[in-house]
Amino acid sequence: MILTVTLNTALDLTYRVPALTPHASHRVTQVIERPGGKGLNVARVLAALGYETVVTGFAGGPTGEVVRAHLAELPLTDALLTIAGPTRRTVAVVDTSTGDTTQLNEPGPHLTPAEWSAFTGHYTELLAGAEAVALCGSLPPGIHVGAYAELVRIARGVGVPVLLDTSGEPLRRGIAARPDLVKPNADELAQLTGSREPHRATRDARRRGAHAVVSSLGPAGILAATPDGLWHAAPPATVRGNPTGAGDSAVAGLLSALVDGLPWPDRLTRAVALSAATVLSPVAGEFDRAAYEELLPRVTVTEQVAAA
Amino acid sequence: MILTVTLNTALDLTYRVPALTPHASHRVTQVIERPGGKGLNVARVLAALGYETVVTGFAGGPTGEVVRAHLAELPLTDALLTIAGPTRRTVAVVDTSTGDTTQLNEPGPHLTPAEWSAFTGHYTELLAGAEAVALCGSLPPGIHVGAYAELVRIARGVGVPVLLDTSGEPLRRGIAARPDLVKPNADELAQLTGSREPHRATRDARRRGAHAVVSSLGPAGILAATPDGLWHAAPPATVRGNPTGAGDSAVAGLLSALVDGLPWPDRLTRAVALSAATVLSPVAGEFDRAAYEELLPRVTVTEQVAAA
Repeated sequence: MILTVTLNTALDLTYRVPALTPHASHRVTQVIERPGGKGLNVARVLAALGYETVVTGFAGGPTGEVVRAHLAELPLTDALLTIAGPTRRTVAVVDTSTGDTTQLNEPGPHLTPAEWSAFTGHYTELLAGAEAVALCGSLPPGIHVGAYAELVRIARGVGVPVLLDTSGEPLRRGIAARPDLVKPNADELAQLTGSREPHRATRDARRRGAHAVVSSLGPAGILAATPDGLWHAAPPATVRGNPTGAGDSAVAGLLSALVDGLPWPDRLTRAVALSAATVLSPVAGEFDRAAYEELLPRVTVTEQVAAA
Repeated sequence: MILTVTLNTALDLTYRVPALTPHASHRVTQVIERPGGKGLNVARVLAALGYETVVTGFAGGPTGEVVRAHLAELPLTDALLTIAGPTRRTVAVVDTSTGDTTQLNEPGPHLTPAEWSAFTGHYTELLAGAEAVALCGSLPPGIHVGAYAELVRIARGVGVPVLLDTSGEPLRRGIAARPDLVKPNADELAQLTGSREPHRATRDARRRGAHAVVSSLGPAGILAATPDGLWHAAPPATVRGNPTGAGDSAVAGLLSALVDGLPWPDRLTRAVALSAATVLSPVAGEFDRAAYEELLPRVTVTEQVAAA
């Protein structure tokens, strides 16, 4: 099975309003509610692709119960740890006149040291049955900034391939613990390396400790610096749509193809096709299966020559 | 006891953000959660004043459970009816750089005809023990627009004084059912009567069927057209603060003073003092008890001569 870890799970609310006007009162015309947090998004895509998937992380309070009720409807295993603090909500306000989204994220529960300690034990047990693990998203308050580094080390200690998808200081610390793979976007990469030049920044990120770095180039695809070489993978044409969840779908593609034992170019192809099929989906964060299958043979992977 | 009816109960969330920027992502720095809907706000003030208070209306889904858990902490009786649809949330986004609030209101659950029918029976039973009843706030989807008119008639049929605090077509229909009291604000009154001149609009509203009309003049106090005369009641000075809940506190003042058998000028004094003490409170929707007691003897009530 594939394990995904979401330390800061959420109940994601999407509110559609005719037009968002600061300081005014708005009647929300549509409310969509779904479990959120990057690791849960990755797991939903893995489960939809038919992979045996287990999710862990934390759930607490009434909002945590709602997240679990939504997870129970999906073909995956809920191994979230119950905590005292309440799971956070996130609110995406979609202005239907412009299509723009304004995001409001609650900070998440304060974890106690005892809860973190219980989690690392629970995580270690789950790794015994895992073929790969993804560590995704932000840290809730009260977890030490080296938490991901700790989880990377535990996974590497038991020989389970580990992918890290986070940002800021947790990424900086986590990368030094030598994960098998990190998947930064342009902003995360620039924050980590100080460079916005994709080739330079991707190779720099790799020198910081990750065995492989797959950087998102947005609509231009992905750039991968791996032990086997440097590749650029791109969709057949620029896809237009809602990029929400495209990065999480890319993680699901990379992880599932790793578990399938595919070579790097095939892993990247799957990541790009899933990512583009997510942008094309009418439902934010879901992928369009027909588009995915149609895109798969049309993704181009080009080996890059490393600059001096 | 005093009964308050909230057909569209809510879980009110207040999010503090450093600055609200449309189309950006925001980290919420503080989340405050409380039961909401005008009737619940009125009941909270009545209970704080020491009146035996019963709340009814609807609660459903996980959000309904959270609302009930919050109500269980207050000195009032929860007689909400459980329904299938989920209770709505409202989100008030407070921009801490300006103090301005942006409001997002979910529409509320869809009620079935069977649920509405069950409610009118439940409401009739509760009225048997009630000295007065307040009908407050918007209607959730699926309830007929004459719902408040129906509830006004039931209360009048069993001789329980009934106050109606709503807006738009439900107010227009409700007023025609001859409630004892309506409490419109300037916008609601203008929508009902087509006039923004307070004296004219208040007397016009009374001619539409209400036995008494108490109109909010905002910081200038209230204007009351009653069977006993026409009065203007005003706080000693303009109070500055957060007006959230000031109208609900005024309703609690009017209703509690009615139950106490006080004459109109004393009822208006209590309504103005509670309303001003709510504006002055550092917590939105709560009233400042010391300010209330200090304001009570300083409210001025002036009898008005009706214009020709």
